[in-house]
Amino acid sequence: MRKYAPVTASLITDLLRHRSRQSSRLLSSTHILDHPSSSSPSPSPSSSLMSSSSNHPLSIATINDKVLKCEYAVRGEIVTLAQKLQEELSVKPGSHPFDEILYCNIGNPQSLGQQPITFFREVLALCDHPAILDKSETQGLFSTDAIARAWQILDQIPGRATGAYSHSQGIKGLRDTIAAGIEARDGYPADPNDFFLTDGASPAVHMMMQLLIRSEGDGILCPIPQYPLYSASIALHGGTLVPYYLDEATGWGLETSELKKQLEAAKSKGINVRALVVINPGNPTGQVLAEDNQRQIVEFCKQEGLVLLADEVYQENIYAPDKKFHSFKKISRSMGYGNEDIALVSFQSVSKGYYGECGKRGGYMEVTGFSPEIREQIYKVASVNLCSNISGQILASLVMNPPKVGDESFESYSAEKDGILSSLERRAKALEDALNSLEGVECNKAEGAMYLFPRIYLPAKAIKAAEAVNTSPDTFYCRRLLNATGIVVVPGSGFGQVPGTWHFRCTILPQEDKIPAIVSRLTEFHKQFMEEFRD
Amino acid sequence: MRKYAPVTASLITDLLRHRSRQSSRLLSSTHILDHPSSSSPSPSPSSSLMSSSSNHPLSIATINDKVLKCEYAVRGEIVTLAQKLQEELSVKPGSHPFDEILYCNIGNPQSLGQQPITFFREVLALCDHPAILDKSETQGLFSTDAIARAWQILDQIPGRATGAYSHSQGIKGLRDTIAAGIEARDGYPADPNDFFLTDGASPAVHMMMQLLIRSEGDGILCPIPQYPLYSASIALHGGTLVPYYLDEATGWGLETSELKKQLEAAKSKGINVRALVVINPGNPTGQVLAEDNQRQIVEFCKQEGLVLLADEVYQENIYAPDKKFHSFKKISRSMGYGNEDIALVSFQSVSKGYYGECGKRGGYMEVTGFSPEIREQIYKVASVNLCSNISGQILASLVMNPPKVGDESFESYSAEKDGILSSLERRAKALEDALNSLEGVECNKAEGAMYLFPRIYLPAKAIKAAEAVNTSPDTFYCRRLLNATGIVVVPGSGFGQVPGTWHFRCTILPQEDKIPAIVSRLTEFHKQFMEEFRD
Repeated sequence: MRKYAPVTASLITDLLRHRSRQSSRLLSSTHILDHPSSSSPSPSPSSSLMSSSSNHPLSIATINDKVLKCEYAVRGEIVTLAQKLQEELSVKPGSHPFDEILYCNIGNPQSLGQQPITFFREVLALCDHPAILDKSETQGLFSTDAIARAWQILDQIPGRATGAYSHSQGIKGLRDTIAAGIEARDGYPADPNDFFLTDGASPAVHMMMQLLIRSEGDGILCPIPQYPLYSASIALHGGTLVPYYLDEATGWGLETSELKKQLEAAKSKGINVRALVVINPGNPTGQVLAEDNQRQIVEFCKQEGLVLLADEVYQENIYAPDKKFHSFKKISRSMGYGNEDIALVSFQSVSKGYYGECGKRGGYMEVTGFSPEIREQIYKVASVNLCSNISGQILASLVMNPPKVGDESFESYSAEKDGILSSLERRAKALEDALNSLEGVECNKAEGAMYLFPRIYLPAKAIKAAEAVNTSPDTFYCRRLLNATGIVVVPGSGFGQVPGTWHFRCTILPQEDKIPAIVSRLTEFHKQFMEEFRD
Repeated sequence: MRKYAPVTASLITDLLRHRSRQSSRLLSSTHILDHPSSSSPSPSPSSSLMSSSSNHPLSIATINDKVLKCEYAVRGEIVTLAQKLQEELSVKPGSHPFDEILYCNIGNPQSLGQQPITFFREVLALCDHPAILDKSETQGLFSTDAIARAWQILDQIPGRATGAYSHSQGIKGLRDTIAAGIEARDGYPADPNDFFLTDGASPAVHMMMQLLIRSEGDGILCPIPQYPLYSASIALHGGTLVPYYLDEATGWGLETSELKKQLEAAKSKGINVRALVVINPGNPTGQVLAEDNQRQIVEFCKQEGLVLLADEVYQENIYAPDKKFHSFKKISRSMGYGNEDIALVSFQSVSKGYYGECGKRGGYMEVTGFSPEIREQIYKVASVNLCSNISGQILASLVMNPPKVGDESFESYSAEKDGILSSLERRAKALEDALNSLEGVECNKAEGAMYLFPRIYLPAKAIKAAEAVNTSPDTFYCRRLLNATGIVVVPGSGFGQVPGTWHFRCTILPQEDKIPAIVSRLTEFHKQFMEEFRD
């Protein structure tokens, strides 16, 4: 170990002299070295080890173990393998038994050829370069309602400055538009000041976890299977994921008896359960909750004093004709519950719906039922990152206020929207049927969202083969599928599943002309796999 | 307290039955309720209190105290007051002794009238709406090199899909461009795979703090005064800010003797200091480090095994003719130090420079000297949020590869760039002179960045008056200034300062035609303030 000059009392005195409680609110509220209220932690064994072995500052053993614990399968090992195969294909075409990688791992429609909605992109382009707005050529290139909307949006932005940081909750005029859209959707008032615009929905989820989680003693009820953003965020913030299981036998039903059971079990272990995550429509499971079920969930949260974290990013992706999306805000208001009764956060994103604008990173949360003091804390955390990107903010307002009957773009907009949604419905059905026709595969209907989550009954021999290469059986299956066909899906273990059951998540997003090839490649692979491993 | 059905052993058995270590890598690595390796935390007293008093889930006492501790003065109480005054002015013009609020609190150039660089916005607009790229009207509206660049960028994006999630580090082709720009800047190789593109620089800083900080026992050396993103991020991640003081008497000089002293003092208290933050050019202090000083800092980090976190977002904002920006990467490479010798992270942003595109939220970090295992962890954390916004990514590539001699846009681009930078230099000088002419005010030269950080010698009577209203003297001064003139500046206590000294941060960003009015309003206010409180 290196030697240092002995630390003298005068150094410490000097340090204390520099401390300022009165002069610096900032420093007195951040934990600083010489803060009198903190105990002196002793160096960890690993850090001593590190400095004795090398000057190089970091080893994997010394980074934050919350980071190590976090997992995110949607871009996990199967996707890393896919990227490697894609590089190999581009360097050496013909090096694999397929020509292209088909990314069915992630809800990323435009990466698979879905075209953006023209009206939205016209407005974004005009807001990016307002200098062309009053040029004559612009009339020939852009629809008149896109030009009008760009002016309207620019007038909502202080100084028309699309390159300026905005209010940390997002531009007030855009929040007004979003709130009006939510009011129209729900039939209940929405307050523009309840909205926090974010770069996609993920940062909003992180903000709420950061607010709610103090330690491992704080639990968040999450569905299993779940979209792994939740488990990742809970891990990063050091909390405890309290699982509740969706019932595959009833189309991934959400039973409040299961919620109660898991809540009580958590409490009995001393866990302070703070919130319930509900994903509706479901990811990866695709179910759309019934209104009555939603009322039970709201009642449960109210009774138990839980914050309801409602992931509603697939609200416009409904395919089952007998199902309809209802926001949890609408449900709770229809039960007579207001801000005093239930704390509710609804997450929304421009990445999903029929628009699928993932790369724009627009999204927001509507936060209701929180005290002004806590709202101030959320604002403060938002303000540390200044604001979300303005194009994403504009897009979030556009999807809540698309062209109306009579607008020049209405017809083309409607055709684009309906075309995408009806195609998604057909694709979901085609893939669902194909999966259900496979030996040992059972697939629930995708009522909504963008995924199928089939159960695969793997032969014992396949499970043994997976064990032999030290991986889970579903990962083993997905890796084989990728290597044989170029199709990228995510193992069910990345989302959680009832022990002993195996699934994978497959998006319904490949373009329709690719579906037949996917179905035949998948079918052929599966047959061969079963042949190879049949018990 | 409400009563619950007694928790039976069967519930716990059931819960354990549901746990899957083998089946779910995700769940076994996230801390879940029934994880065998965790001790059972007991409920905190505050949580019992909460559930006994009300069903409503949250009170300010029960949220994460790291959030409570975090402060961010740049959008703190003075700005909140300014927003209130602005609303009052718009509702009732003439209700205050000024017509408009002048936001000098934040480096947000376009909010104060700075125009975006035309070429950059042309390319962004074309990438947002590529459908117009081959229309004839487009030739009349956009420069030929902007059209060519848009095609080039679209070809770098898989499927030309600007609406798709990208690789979680950012689009590879854009990272190639950025790396080439850094190589040209520094004269040393840059690897595209070392770059992580982020929504502005702030999320990159958070990612590094998240990686490095495990507990209060981990310290980060930060300059005082500092940009409060650092103290906020350290607070949110539960670490300890180890302050080192910049020397105002030598133009905010950074002495390595001070670094050593503070490091030793921290070690003697058991703090494991992990990284050194250097902001160059300085924020809020505006100094530009000399090359020799930078070499000492690199040597210090190497010797002490510290990660060097280099905030270099103002690298293009240099006003002192005898000063030049040198990246820490260039300095360390010029000393013969490579990846094995020093772990270095450089932060860059599209929000600063001459472009000032704050609302686009583009930025990146270049991460060198980290092991592949740790890089994988950084990638994983980046992947949880999928990717940064694509417009911001495109803009980050544009600022590293602007129009060149011979390009159609070169002349107008150069004129716009030089116009902004020379104007900023004049504004800095005018405000600096005005401040230095005030009684009891001393202001160092802004060699770079976007701020002045004058010291104000406040009379004892003013300090007493501040105490009487329970605020810090610099906040008292700034609030008075705002109420009298509409000028928004940030109290020095938001950045940290030597105890007993008082400062404020004022941007140099108001447009030149406003500077005379600002100077006269500020001067008049200051005279009256001193008259009122003179000892």
